[in-house]
Amino acid sequence: MRDALPHYTCACGRSYVPDAARWRCDCGGPLDLAAVPFTWRPRSTEEGLWRYADALAVPSLGLTLGEGLTPLIRASPDGDPGLLLKVEYASPTGSFKDRGAVTLATVARLLGAERVVCDSSGNAGTAMAAYAARAGLRAEIFVPEGTSAKKVQQIAGHGAEVTVVPGSREDTATAAAERVERTGAFYASHVYNPFFHDGVKTYALEIFERLGTAPDTLVLPAGNGTLVIGAYLGFAALRDAGLVDRVPRVVAVQAERCAPVAAAYTAGAREVTAVRPGRTAAEGIAIAAPVRGPRVLEIVRDTGGTVVTVSEDEIAAAHAALASRGLWVEPTGAVAYAAVSGLGTAPGEVVVAPLCGSGLKASL
Amino acid sequence: MRDALPHYTCACGRSYVPDAARWRCDCGGPLDLAAVPFTWRPRSTEEGLWRYADALAVPSLGLTLGEGLTPLIRASPDGDPGLLLKVEYASPTGSFKDRGAVTLATVARLLGAERVVCDSSGNAGTAMAAYAARAGLRAEIFVPEGTSAKKVQQIAGHGAEVTVVPGSREDTATAAAERVERTGAFYASHVYNPFFHDGVKTYALEIFERLGTAPDTLVLPAGNGTLVIGAYLGFAALRDAGLVDRVPRVVAVQAERCAPVAAAYTAGAREVTAVRPGRTAAEGIAIAAPVRGPRVLEIVRDTGGTVVTVSEDEIAAAHAALASRGLWVEPTGAVAYAAVSGLGTAPGEVVVAPLCGSGLKASL
Repeated sequence: MRDALPHYTCACGRSYVPDAARWRCDCGGPLDLAAVPFTWRPRSTEEGLWRYADALAVPSLGLTLGEGLTPLIRASPDGDPGLLLKVEYASPTGSFKDRGAVTLATVARLLGAERVVCDSSGNAGTAMAAYAARAGLRAEIFVPEGTSAKKVQQIAGHGAEVTVVPGSREDTATAAAERVERTGAFYASHVYNPFFHDGVKTYALEIFERLGTAPDTLVLPAGNGTLVIGAYLGFAALRDAGLVDRVPRVVAVQAERCAPVAAAYTAGAREVTAVRPGRTAAEGIAIAAPVRGPRVLEIVRDTGGTVVTVSEDEIAAAHAALASRGLWVEPTGAVAYAAVSGLGTAPGEVVVAPLCGSGLKASL
Repeated sequence: MRDALPHYTCACGRSYVPDAARWRCDCGGPLDLAAVPFTWRPRSTEEGLWRYADALAVPSLGLTLGEGLTPLIRASPDGDPGLLLKVEYASPTGSFKDRGAVTLATVARLLGAERVVCDSSGNAGTAMAAYAARAGLRAEIFVPEGTSAKKVQQIAGHGAEVTVVPGSREDTATAAAERVERTGAFYASHVYNPFFHDGVKTYALEIFERLGTAPDTLVLPAGNGTLVIGAYLGFAALRDAGLVDRVPRVVAVQAERCAPVAAAYTAGAREVTAVRPGRTAAEGIAIAAPVRGPRVLEIVRDTGGTVVTVSEDEIAAAHAALASRGLWVEPTGAVAYAAVSGLGTAPGEVVVAPLCGSGLKASL
């Protein structure tokens, strides 16, 4: 089964057979996956993401908590029919991160790993803790100080070891990477491991299956860019298979107070310079130095999209507007909607925005 | 559209055309629905429960948050293939109550109501607040003192008015009913309003659609019996339509410390006597005097089932066992699994148990 996995590739030209200890290129850069066969054949008999097993790089071991197949609904019953929201928080652990956690846990098993390490401020950590438990893997989750007691309780409840790291989100990532280097554990990183993106591809596949076509525009929150990259890969595969004409325009959204990708986009740059972040309610995308920032820029430009920022007031207003329509998200989950309510839709345009994380996860 | 609704009926022989102010029979008893046409024609183009619009008593107004179509998975990947768990907490508001809240909110709109009143210790209250907001209805939710700040925050976030009632869960119900009587508001009660059960029927329809047949046994938590009654109605409709041979055996589960239905079952009684409840972690089913207890007894006996109780230790052990397999429920959500791990499955038997409410909802 291990032979069934595609090679890791790097923009520098190197490639590697995946093994449990490899998490980045020798040049230091993040890894991608070599192209894999894509067959459009949704399986109604499979639970969770394995509905799209024939379209994924990761072969199924039957691991699932029933992730995916999330609702696609109007923002309000009488609202703009061109604006659709994908209710990603109706997922087993309450966020879209389940899509990548299930493929990462499967790959860890295929590579013979017994321990996984992950760093996260929240959603990725709870998702990896749950899927590692499901897969019978020991998990160690590094979280920044200040992470809510509720999230720590859930991570520990799944049997994972929780290490609270003083300092910034970046310090947490550094601590996790050091542990990986020291122990040879599988680094279940949604930032570095491209098999995470393979699972997130299904965000695009579900939208295509539901609409029978590609929407015109995807509005997507961008911190590390996981959802931007995953959704792009899904629609690019559908395009390459001749099932859709083109990849939708990608509008990436950042919080005004932590917007390194937006700054690079405005400056016309190809690289992303780290910023000194302000305090934002959108903690899930407050990434000052996104490793895959250049890839996000490339996707936005290739699809004719743009990068926009939203203010704290706009995030709060979007959260309240969603709640008044029965939708309960954590503040980060309101970011895409904040942007789209500002942008509006053109006549006949179909726009899809995700509600990424559950309001039940937010600290009180 | 209002004419499309079936009449209310009562065991005493009376029947009524539904109107917004009617919530029980003049004899004081709970109301049921007259039989409605049932057509098995799942609509893949509809979101949420309206996939089964042709099988429901409530006509669609297009109101949805994407409820239903929850996963049906094994308890563990390598576990007993005959034991399936339905992950009801992967619902828009985090519990199976969404299935009934969407039909109640729709009926309230059809009957011209502008205000709804609901009493709940948690899941039904958050679900009704969300769906009332979705439907553009004003909502007033009565909760018992001690309800977690997180639940109150969510209910208020959806724009509902929250009234905290001192005393017991029963005192809360009394306060809500008094408000209904005084104001003529629509009583969005999952206990009294049979249109709630109409939505919960879809629990059965989804299991049937997924398995292509009926399971042998349904293990279901029973407080007010909402899920027992809804699941029974769904399978009875499938049986009457000739799609399944019989209704599965219904095993109702109560917490040992609040088990009025179990006591009546053991005594061979047809009526249920109120108990003085002890303190149980399964607060969602701690109902000392269940209005529809006799109906639950009837269903259990008609299907060749039984009523079992689980101890606090068994609930805690089931919660931990589920968490160790990646499943995160509130304590009440572990009750059915606690029972089924005690009962086991016979060779070839297929048993389905629900995980009703999300662990993210539990107080820390």
